Amino acid sequence: MQEKEFSIGIDIGGTNTDFGLVNRRGDISFQDNLKTRTYKHPGDFVTALKNKLTAAIREVGKEKITGIGIGAPNGNVYSGNIELAANLPWKGVIPLRQMVKDAFALPAFLTNDANATAIGEMTYGAAKGMQDFLLITLGTGVGSGFVANGKLIYGHDGFAGELGHVTAIRDGRPCGCGRRGCLETYASATGIVTTAIEFLRQEGIKFDDRMQQDWLLPVWEKNNRVSAKEIYLAARAGDPLAAEIFDFTGKILGQTLADAVAITSPKAIIFFGGLAKAGAYILTPAKKAMEENLLAIFKNKIELIPSGLVERDAAILGAAALAWQ
Amino acid sequence: MQEKEFSIGIDIGGTNTDFGLVNRRGDISFQDNLKTRTYKHPGDFVTALKNKLTAAIREVGKEKITGIGIGAPNGNVYSGNIELAANLPWKGVIPLRQMVKDAFALPAFLTNDANATAIGEMTYGAAKGMQDFLLITLGTGVGSGFVANGKLIYGHDGFAGELGHVTAIRDGRPCGCGRRGCLETYASATGIVTTAIEFLRQEGIKFDDRMQQDWLLPVWEKNNRVSAKEIYLAARAGDPLAAEIFDFTGKILGQTLADAVAITSPKAIIFFGGLAKAGAYILTPAKKAMEENLLAIFKNKIELIPSGLVERDAAILGAAALAWQ
Repeated sequence: MQEKEFSIGIDIGGTNTDFGLVNRRGDISFQDNLKTRTYKHPGDFVTALKNKLTAAIREVGKEKITGIGIGAPNGNVYSGNIELAANLPWKGVIPLRQMVKDAFALPAFLTNDANATAIGEMTYGAAKGMQDFLLITLGTGVGSGFVANGKLIYGHDGFAGELGHVTAIRDGRPCGCGRRGCLETYASATGIVTTAIEFLRQEGIKFDDRMQQDWLLPVWEKNNRVSAKEIYLAARAGDPLAAEIFDFTGKILGQTLADAVAITSPKAIIFFGGLAKAGAYILTPAKKAMEENLLAIFKNKIELIPSGLVERDAAILGAAALAWQ
Repeated sequence: MQEKEFSIGIDIGGTNTDFGLVNRRGDISFQDNLKTRTYKHPGDFVTALKNKLTAAIREVGKEKITGIGIGAPNGNVYSGNIELAANLPWKGVIPLRQMVKDAFALPAFLTNDANATAIGEMTYGAAKGMQDFLLITLGTGVGSGFVANGKLIYGHDGFAGELGHVTAIRDGRPCGCGRRGCLETYASATGIVTTAIEFLRQEGIKFDDRMQQDWLLPVWEKNNRVSAKEIYLAARAGDPLAAEIFDFTGKILGQTLADAVAITSPKAIIFFGGLAKAGAYILTPAKKAMEENLLAIFKNKIELIPSGLVERDAAILGAAALAWQ
């Protein structure tokens, strides 16, 4: 029997879907992406995936591919379904593992996108060798993968680790999930933009001389919109309002982390995703608020670490690792 | 080599310490208790334990005892220490496993009291056969044991499952741990008494005709104190203020449970301890608030179950089971 040399990893995000062909050493030999929101029907999405991957599969030989691993928001490892994902264009329950298996005629495996990233970090990244850690993705939404005794914790329903939907602020901002005050409405790329808009509207009214040195306000006044990246660049350039926006975001994140630590007692918390790229701008206030809210037995023990992996690689590698398992 | 037939289980609580001699089938052949707070020094406590157990050990023969399992607040399975326990009379770090081992000249094992109870429930109680569940103790304080894939989750430091110190109300009531708003300041026997006092003080001022049918207020006015048990008896007798106190307590518990579910995805949550004996009075409002705050993927799936075991038995059995493992 021919040895399988490759697997395919697919990382489905609210905005982008990244995928690649990965060998056993973790080298990605082919990589491409799709805009997730373009596909109103999951069937069209799977067809587009297949079209983009066909040439690469043919090149290495289909018989050398062990299978396809998929990381997706609300992906359920047990059922193979994407269930009620707030940040995807597809509503209800989508049997994506079966759809991919049928389309590619290859074994397929599906889990939560954050769980796939946690597997990637554990195998190749900042969590290498760790037995107990939390992986948190700060992207369009907030996800988490929770590893104890060196194994991903899926829980009874396969949905453990939904830290993005822990209530950070009781009766706070409305969330895509239909509830209020979820961590993801504050500590995601979307959440920090909402915070910026709130702060900027407020600042527009009580414009004071401190604002002379700002450049975030002019950006907002010109375009009537800002992006998470613009807030980051403004903070880096010394804009005090941008720094306040990051402090506020980090504080809410840190308070919620303290509660997650009380339940899971991790060695470290690894941060991944677009907003995590802001590094110390988000992690310094998060660490401060976490420490202030930690039970004494946990204080000064838990590291907050930005991911060491290239963003799209980690999720692809993690998803691909699902197929090896 | 002679087969070991017995183990000793010791459950240390903020108020009472229960202990017993247990055989492999889970029968408790000797059982006694101590008032924990009587012993200002842990050395005196261990001496008192030994005095109370000596006759029972001599009777079955020390050579037939495999070891001693201890469940204690903030008990650390890795170090064998009780570390910074807010509800015990002993401050700092107490090397209790070593002290018990030396005093009895028997192998000793120590873990969190709630973890020991979770082992008891998993072996003999409501969680028998469950792979993924939360055990929550509602006693003097609030503790929890978190089981995933059929194993207790201890986390990196051995302190996973400190649900009692998850922040239920931001900047809420001061807690023995030095922080504010911990679940245990609301959803413990101590917490519900605090709530009752707050409600009764308020009611004393705005005494209305609804209060004519109450008996909780007269109890309070006579003694200037109420107990958790009196609140429960009043609720059972139809006292509307007592029902309100339980509804308030259950609501805060349920909101926090929803967050714990998002992280751990349990099949069920088992309730144990003094306040859990109030059954539906606490669990009905808790279930309602939990469901209102659950992410859609978890709704109507998770059972809240009162412990099926006699209270002091479960913790003794769980602690004793530590020694068998």
